Amino acid sequence: MEMLYEGKAKRVYKTNINDVYIVSYKDDATAFNGIKKGKIKNKGLVNNQMSAILFKALEDKGIENHFIEKLSDGEMLVKAVDIIPLEVIVRNVAAGSLSKRLGLEEGMQLKSTVIEFSYKNDQLGDPLLNDDHIEILEIVSKEELAYIRQKALKINEILQQLFIKKGLRLIDFKMEFGKYKGNIILADEISPDTCRLWDLETNEKMDKDRFRRDLGNVTEAYEEVLNRLKELEE
Amino acid sequence: MEMLYEGKAKRVYKTNINDVYIVSYKDDATAFNGIKKGKIKNKGLVNNQMSAILFKALEDKGIENHFIEKLSDGEMLVKAVDIIPLEVIVRNVAAGSLSKRLGLEEGMQLKSTVIEFSYKNDQLGDPLLNDDHIEILEIVSKEELAYIRQKALKINEILQQLFIKKGLRLIDFKMEFGKYKGNIILADEISPDTCRLWDLETNEKMDKDRFRRDLGNVTEAYEEVLNRLKELEE
Ligand SMILES: Nc1ncnc2c1ncn2[C@@H]1O[C@H](COP(=O)(O)OP(=O)(O)O)[C@@H](O)[C@H]1O
Ligand SMILES: Nc1ncnc2c1ncn2[C@@H]1O[C@H](COP(=O)(O)OP(=O)(O)O)[C@@H](O)[C@H]1O
Ligand SMILES: [Mg+2]
Ligand SMILES: [Mg+2]
Repeated sequence: MEMLYEGKAKRVYKTNINDVYIVSYKDDATAFNGIKKGKIKNKGLVNNQMSAILFKALEDKGIENHFIEKLSDGEMLVKAVDIIPLEVIVRNVAAGSLSKRLGLEEGMQLKSTVIEFSYKNDQLGDPLLNDDHIEILEIVSKEELAYIRQKALKINEILQQLFIKKGLRLIDFKMEFGKYKGNIILADEISPDTCRLWDLETNEKMDKDRFRRDLGNVTEAYEEVLNRLKELEE
Repeated sequence: MEMLYEGKAKRVYKTNINDVYIVSYKDDATAFNGIKKGKIKNKGLVNNQMSAILFKALEDKGIENHFIEKLSDGEMLVKAVDIIPLEVIVRNVAAGSLSKRLGLEEGMQLKSTVIEFSYKNDQLGDPLLNDDHIEILEIVSKEELAYIRQKALKINEILQQLFIKKGLRLIDFKMEFGKYKGNIILADEISPDTCRLWDLETNEKMDKDRFRRDLGNVTEAYEEVLNRLKELEE
């Protein structure tokens, strides 16, 4: 199988089928724009299965996305998209870089949902963009940006509701969208690597912050999130 | 005279008159969020006189601002406003932090005007804000933000035209707005500290970048800009 590219968390392979790729999830973990590197045992297996469950749930709610089917616990078949080089971040509660940049206490409920776009560009360190920056960089049109914003808010609503049922608060999360046959659809992954999830009762962090901040029990937290979600499927 | 506050570039004094302050311009210069410090000879005199000329010209074109009158070469009388803690930056050409953050070559004409808002907060290092950040920080309402954007674009047009006549390209500039008797008006200063100005013929930098980047002849550049503008008044 021909590998098309290898990123920090996944490998993407060509298939015999037109416009279809295989994504294989890795245990490699990076943080702070690649400065911190390590491995999280079983991360690839958790993130692939979790993404599969969530993409399916989103599809059921009318959110078009790249997921086709799970091939194995660590691999999925996806629609081959042209990734839009934007990290689309949705925030419900202050945490991480938002807290740090704006001096907001971590855990503070935001009075309205915040959407951030950052330029998916490792060399530049994924800088925050405003709408005018997106315009001059010609990343997407104004109409496409409005469409992505609207989808992002809708996805946030669906995921928040879904996680709440599993005793998890969706603090914030990062998405990537891509173009597929003229449409903009959700792609990439939805996992504890890309979502901040806090236990509803204990406020315990159940996501990549355990790795970033050396909180321990990283694998256990990832597996716990997956196990709670698996009940969805039943 | 009671000093109300001293900033990095100006001192603000109370007067006997209600809602009227005196602003006194200093020679002190800072850069890179206060990390680089120094003095620029005659800067206070240049910036006060230049601001006076430009505020008057803007007033004539219908842009309400805080300028009342020049008191001396280094001081002006202004309307006392409640400063809105936003640095409103308008960019016509890539330079400075925009070039660095987005990897755009300095001097590249932008395909459309870029407006940036940063949070006027020295402790946080004036972080870039998007509209959602401004909303959750409750700095201004959506309507007020739209009003500031529209004024910023209009001011940019007026200043660009005015500088062009003096052989200067307005690359980018920073403004501060304030609330005065329920209205949002332009305040602070318009000077080589807050504008990037390049000579139209030679592309020579005629602004604070000479200080930031140790290009020499800083005072001479500031004085040259003022002298060219003074012809406006005749
Ligand atoms: N459906 C898809 N089609 C094409 N590329 C995709 C798809 N989904 C995700 N990708 C891309 O796969 C690459 C590998 O993923 P990842 O390891 O997370 O990369 P990165 O190091 O950029 O975060 C990324 O460039 C991602 O944008
Ligand atoms: N018309 C005005 N009324 C009240 N404050 C003003 C007015 N114009 C400017 N200011 C404020 O005066 C202060 C001093 O200016 P400056 O030395 O440039 O400060 P800074 O170090 O914050 O850049 C700043 O806080 C600026 O916002
Ligand atoms: Mg990734
Ligand atoms: Mg200032």
